[in-house]
Amino acid sequence: MTSTESIDSFHRGRFHVVQPLGQGHRSGMDAMLLASLVADERPIRVADLGAGAGAAGMAVASRLDTAQVTLVERSPTMAAFARRSLELPENARFAARLDVIEADVAWKGRERAAAGLVDDSFHHVIMNPPFNDGSDRRTPDPLKAEAHAMEEDLFEIWIRTACAITRPGGQLSLIARPESISEIIAACGRRFGGLEITALHPRPGENAVRILVTAIKQSRARLAFRAPLIMHEDDAHRFTAYVDDLNNGRAAYARKTLSARR
Amino acid sequence: MTSTESIDSFHRGRFHVVQPLGQGHRSGMDAMLLASLVADERPIRVADLGAGAGAAGMAVASRLDTAQVTLVERSPTMAAFARRSLELPENARFAARLDVIEADVAWKGRERAAAGLVDDSFHHVIMNPPFNDGSDRRTPDPLKAEAHAMEEDLFEIWIRTACAITRPGGQLSLIARPESISEIIAACGRRFGGLEITALHPRPGENAVRILVTAIKQSRARLAFRAPLIMHEDDAHRFTAYVDDLNNGRAAYARKTLSARR
Repeated sequence: MTSTESIDSFHRGRFHVVQPLGQGHRSGMDAMLLASLVADERPIRVADLGAGAGAAGMAVASRLDTAQVTLVERSPTMAAFARRSLELPENARFAARLDVIEADVAWKGRERAAAGLVDDSFHHVIMNPPFNDGSDRRTPDPLKAEAHAMEEDLFEIWIRTACAITRPGGQLSLIARPESISEIIAACGRRFGGLEITALHPRPGENAVRILVTAIKQSRARLAFRAPLIMHEDDAHRFTAYVDDLNNGRAAYARKTLSARR
Repeated sequence: MTSTESIDSFHRGRFHVVQPLGQGHRSGMDAMLLASLVADERPIRVADLGAGAGAAGMAVASRLDTAQVTLVERSPTMAAFARRSLELPENARFAARLDVIEADVAWKGRERAAAGLVDDSFHHVIMNPPFNDGSDRRTPDPLKAEAHAMEEDLFEIWIRTACAITRPGGQLSLIARPESISEIIAACGRRFGGLEITALHPRPGENAVRILVTAIKQSRARLAFRAPLIMHEDDAHRFTAYVDDLNNGRAAYARKTLSARR
């Protein structure tokens, strides 16, 4: 017998995600940290762009009882995995607050609206855009290659769509590699302001491996670099307490200044 | 009697800088941290672009016995202050290794070369470009206004000149505000690669107030976010030991990966 999928537990068993094994992008800590950026207890609509199997969006819905989350995924295969996750009894607590849209983040105008991504309609948009990490450049797996496609204008396209569907004053949240920072800031342009950037370092003294970015639609506030997050103490394998809390849905990483407004 | 200038001690009295009082940009910790980015014990030529009264370039020459430093300043008034500093007996130890060029960083081609800024001739270029911090937007002091002029393309112009005069494999070092990061990365473009960015935070948990950036001419290495520097422990007024060492020329902040090559 060969397993072609797995059912993975997140938030210490609070929810589960069906994911392909050995093909496609598998969600993990990046998705959990991304979800932690939505710190909003009000009734909100959240779009998870390029949701894959849906881990980040599910993490938001699991932690926030009044969040309504739309998973947006262009791959029918990955969207099917997301739907199967929502049918798991373990996820019944929040599954009714999620829906899955098969749509390409690059779609515009009527095509996008017809898919259900209506302009100015989401309080929060989250994204963990695909990337190629070099070691992965000639991956033989077409599903993974699609998820990790290197597109020159990726952030421009994704953030353009994010801006279109976010309500004025709503929040964009994303996780990305540090080297994408310039492209991200450029794509935010005059669409999103008040950027707050947090570097994520594996250990004290080590270079960042990810950046967490939030921004507010139509804000004109200045960019800020927040204090970094450190994943591990010097010699420990365990996560630092705060990062562990973020990873397990026991804490949110709220913005420091402007928050999403209604 | 009214004082119109001061003689300020740096590196715990190891050198002194004559600066205007109440007009012009006054150098302080930014200049010392900028100087700490030059970590190169070899005989090197260093250009300090927009040197003002020359504090950063003098700090490099004071710490590195084999560094030859060219201060580049367009304001005749500030250049005169720099020359007076070099005449101080307190600076005799290194003054012969500095020279002052009155030139505008925006100059190009023959005009720039004729001023003494020859293409591919410096191992290191350092800069602390002028900025407007908002509170300072309508400064009545014309000398200060000149130093802090907000130019849309400031980094593009300064980094273009830095690239022209840096040797292949040589190092650019700068200190700037966090909100300039996108402009800096864009201006480095294909001129400088292997960017290493370090955020400088006043205290743990507080937003960064400056970024330190180094880059290598013609490198294609990826951008990295290094661990941040913290200026003060939570409740202390004193600097943390390492920042104090950088500020006082007792330590250099060497690049983590690629170093300037010959």
